[in-house]
Amino acid sequence: MKISVVRNVLDANERIALENRVIFDEKKIFVINLMSGPGAGKTSLVEKTIMALRNKFRIAVIEGDIQDTYDADRVAALGIPAVQINTGSACHLDGNMIRDAFPGLNLDEIDLLIVENVGNLVCPAEFKVGENFKAMVLSTPEGADKPAKYPLMFQESKVLIINKMDLMPYVSFDIEKAKRDALGLNKGLTIFEVSCKTGDGLQDWFEWLSAQIESFRAS
Amino acid sequence: MKISVVRNVLDANERIALENRVIFDEKKIFVINLMSGPGAGKTSLVEKTIMALRNKFRIAVIEGDIQDTYDADRVAALGIPAVQINTGSACHLDGNMIRDAFPGLNLDEIDLLIVENVGNLVCPAEFKVGENFKAMVLSTPEGADKPAKYPLMFQESKVLIINKMDLMPYVSFDIEKAKRDALGLNKGLTIFEVSCKTGDGLQDWFEWLSAQIESFRAS
Repeated sequence: MKISVVRNVLDANERIALENRVIFDEKKIFVINLMSGPGAGKTSLVEKTIMALRNKFRIAVIEGDIQDTYDADRVAALGIPAVQINTGSACHLDGNMIRDAFPGLNLDEIDLLIVENVGNLVCPAEFKVGENFKAMVLSTPEGADKPAKYPLMFQESKVLIINKMDLMPYVSFDIEKAKRDALGLNKGLTIFEVSCKTGDGLQDWFEWLSAQIESFRAS
Repeated sequence: MKISVVRNVLDANERIALENRVIFDEKKIFVINLMSGPGAGKTSLVEKTIMALRNKFRIAVIEGDIQDTYDADRVAALGIPAVQINTGSACHLDGNMIRDAFPGLNLDEIDLLIVENVGNLVCPAEFKVGENFKAMVLSTPEGADKPAKYPLMFQESKVLIINKMDLMPYVSFDIEKAKRDALGLNKGLTIFEVSCKTGDGLQDWFEWLSAQIESFRAS
């Protein structure tokens, strides 16, 4: 009984996410669903990505948080359209919440839409929002046991961005184990090692992402 | 409709948590429900607490993880009874899961039961398991915006343990803001600043916790 309710919720979400996708395709909007645990550096990555790619693509951001507009304020400070979704008690974004954000965006003027999910290594991985792909951030202080403990997000993501590489000398993070376990769950995963603080490694991410967007827009 | 289903789930859990509490009271077992985001250092805190208090109290641990027995293995390596609950896709522990773990424990030989929840700053705060109190860990790399973004866990916890103080020189963590915002949400919060790596600050936590357990056992 419980399982069938959950199944229905996921099925209903799948339909709405597909409807969102139809709109995004029509408008040629490339959409990233960006996930991580709390404090891994999603918003910092969004800021850096905006600064690197804003002259190339028209960017907008949807921020998901339980409460507060702190992240949308950070993005809006860069002069980028940002919609904050406050989920109340919901621990993830779903297709319906994204659809509800559409009136706050001019969909005719967006090339890249970054959806920054609620900080949570579990639930967001279960829900599509109409994205081209899911990307996840794992930060070095979180530890190398995360792929084994939270496998679904690693399985569902196309990209794993390992952030806070600048802290490597001060934390005991077995990066080879983390990468090996992540690739064991999902051999198609593309991995970047970056520091949003120092900027190290970000150029590769910017170039890879640009190529993905250009290939989508050319198709 | 959706709200009433969620309400029923929470009500049902409340009843089961109360039943657990009756058993814990009868057996004089002090129970901590330990919560945090992924990788904040819950298991390290559990290990340090075991080593400090094992000669004073009989300790057992219930470990909650989506998958994997890594944390229970770490605790069992210390010679402490440990039960691993794998929640599958569930992002939190509830009263029923704890009850299901009872056959794996000898309840007549436990003074302190530490329930280490799934790493998640959102959902575990909504569910009682029969604990004396909830405690949460926030680590310095996660950032000082966490109380504002994830208020419920700060509101529901009796204790906030700020961990990874050894990383303070390398991260931009406004600890005064974090404490101010946390106390703004919950003025009864007791706060400890610790490093499970260096041991700094842990003695205060051990002494405070011992006093709590002794006062419960004397009542």
